[in-house]
Amino acid sequence: MQKQLNPKSHRIVILAEGSFGVLESKTATVLVRYLPKNVVAVIDSTNAGKDVSNVIGIGDGIPVVSSLESAMHFKPTMLAIGIAPPGGELPPEWHSILCKAIINGLHIMSGLHYFLSDDVEMFQLAADHDVVLWDARKPPENLPVATCIAASVNATVILTVGSDCRVGKMLSGIEITHTARERGLNAEFCPTGQNGIMVWGWGIAIDAVISDFTAGAAEQIVLEGAKNHDLLIVEGQGSLVHPGYSGVTLSLLHGSMPDAMIFCHQPSRKKVARYTVPLPSITEMIAHYEMLTAPIKPAKVIGLALNCFDLSENETDEAIAAAEEETGLPATDVVKFGADKLVDAIQNILRK
Amino acid sequence: MQKQLNPKSHRIVILAEGSFGVLESKTATVLVRYLPKNVVAVIDSTNAGKDVSNVIGIGDGIPVVSSLESAMHFKPTMLAIGIAPPGGELPPEWHSILCKAIINGLHIMSGLHYFLSDDVEMFQLAADHDVVLWDARKPPENLPVATCIAASVNATVILTVGSDCRVGKMLSGIEITHTARERGLNAEFCPTGQNGIMVWGWGIAIDAVISDFTAGAAEQIVLEGAKNHDLLIVEGQGSLVHPGYSGVTLSLLHGSMPDAMIFCHQPSRKKVARYTVPLPSITEMIAHYEMLTAPIKPAKVIGLALNCFDLSENETDEAIAAAEEETGLPATDVVKFGADKLVDAIQNILRK
Repeated sequence: MQKQLNPKSHRIVILAEGSFGVLESKTATVLVRYLPKNVVAVIDSTNAGKDVSNVIGIGDGIPVVSSLESAMHFKPTMLAIGIAPPGGELPPEWHSILCKAIINGLHIMSGLHYFLSDDVEMFQLAADHDVVLWDARKPPENLPVATCIAASVNATVILTVGSDCRVGKMLSGIEITHTARERGLNAEFCPTGQNGIMVWGWGIAIDAVISDFTAGAAEQIVLEGAKNHDLLIVEGQGSLVHPGYSGVTLSLLHGSMPDAMIFCHQPSRKKVARYTVPLPSITEMIAHYEMLTAPIKPAKVIGLALNCFDLSENETDEAIAAAEEETGLPATDVVKFGADKLVDAIQNILRK
Repeated sequence: MQKQLNPKSHRIVILAEGSFGVLESKTATVLVRYLPKNVVAVIDSTNAGKDVSNVIGIGDGIPVVSSLESAMHFKPTMLAIGIAPPGGELPPEWHSILCKAIINGLHIMSGLHYFLSDDVEMFQLAADHDVVLWDARKPPENLPVATCIAASVNATVILTVGSDCRVGKMLSGIEITHTARERGLNAEFCPTGQNGIMVWGWGIAIDAVISDFTAGAAEQIVLEGAKNHDLLIVEGQGSLVHPGYSGVTLSLLHGSMPDAMIFCHQPSRKKVARYTVPLPSITEMIAHYEMLTAPIKPAKVIGLALNCFDLSENETDEAIAAAEEETGLPATDVVKFGADKLVDAIQNILRK
């Protein structure tokens, strides 16, 4: 097993050079949102001098700086790579920055498909300077083919599914988990992607698993979460209508064997991001998920998490009302209004 | 790139120790079916002394022998691993047999997830004895995330889909390709699994690809096939209702972007093999495939390939009639009756 790091015990500088933004640097945004006390600076020369909150709307008081050298004034102990580009490659110009960070004694946390620990130069430098290269996306070895054993856990399993990538499946999962815990439920978030793993400290990045074993990886996550918890909120991935990642989505659906699903969607999004594929209606997309669970373990969508970050107050209210009208299900924006409505829906099925 | 072998230029002994049978050793059966002049013997001590045709119904005149030593009398130049177990591991007791085969100068052809070329002992032995370890399941490096570029090829793309693993998606694909070529069509079979790759000489085993890139691998196969052919028959994998492999299936569906599909099914099979999951009706399963192609590139199932190997003549006729009645589509058993009915259906859409 590779060494893992607990980001909550570190002073983190986030590398997002040239790419810092709500949509451009999802990892950076997630780290700022959930580890605000740990993030000491963000590196992006194109936004240098600004406050993080001026760029992504959260992270008040955290500076954006122009370089690693500037960031070192804030005494970081860890550098986190703040982007997760399609394909997961390391931007070539970042290689020397990472090497310099290692030489400066910073641990490195990465969610790229490109494993830093496989890079000969970085591996040697990390050994010389006694720092850890944590590849959060590196899956464990010897994962099994799924066997439907996730159906046997005592915990109730909720999966966040969605219309596309980056519509809020991870964020909704974390918010639901927090709210459920506040209500005294023994809930656990089950991360399935590198960003969730980085903020939550465990999980498997299922999109980095060989496809024969992807459902098996989802199964392992559920078994692990169910050891000590009664309610699992499994982080969804991709979408059944995503041309690149739909297979990951279906593996997760069949491997995690949820009791119910929360459907996540951005109302302003009309097509799959980066593709020309138009999104079907919410009702149709929900039907896809329910139809494919039916033969193996039937599960219904019981609530909608709508990501209305780009809508006005009125537009948000209208989008939520329209979605509730269309589907007959409770809908909310968990960032704007909290996750109570969705936890109510989950508690309804717990009572059954 | 690893070295590849052309099995058609070799004398092949198939290792199927303890597992030789129609369903138990799919790889062995496929090699006997499509390379009958090359297979000189099958190793399985539990069936030793029999003729291959007495065990699997084809392969008249090929002996089953008890050991590698006995097989060497038939002057093989290559050993092929004849099984593809779930998980793709090497049965531990076969390790020494393979090492002995290498020492005897045999090239090794394997479709396991376990890559022989990563085995330190075998790798060294192979170098010492100048033989090739061909891991047919090893995917190429640097596969992309799918971009929907498969929709741009000029070739007509047919994907064989199905109700489960091992119902005839590869075999139907090969038979359709042969029949189409006999009719003068410039058709190519596009292998997506290790067995197809072993008999056809190219392709990518998409179940061995990291799940983020599985649809991208399917896309690459279509681009490659379309370079020199007008009609591509892409080998399907798994099933949308398979708890372990459904993600592979959906990646292939969305990555290959077929113009039409052939649905493969074994009428006697009532549940997913090795699982307790009951199979939905043929109509329902076809609806799953058509519904999930609709948002990206709509494609219809245009014919059924029914695997009736375990049915009598009367039962076969009844199963075909029932499926045609249920779906309104042409159905046949390509092994018993040839692929003409399905190639007729394909030519119908070519004329449009």
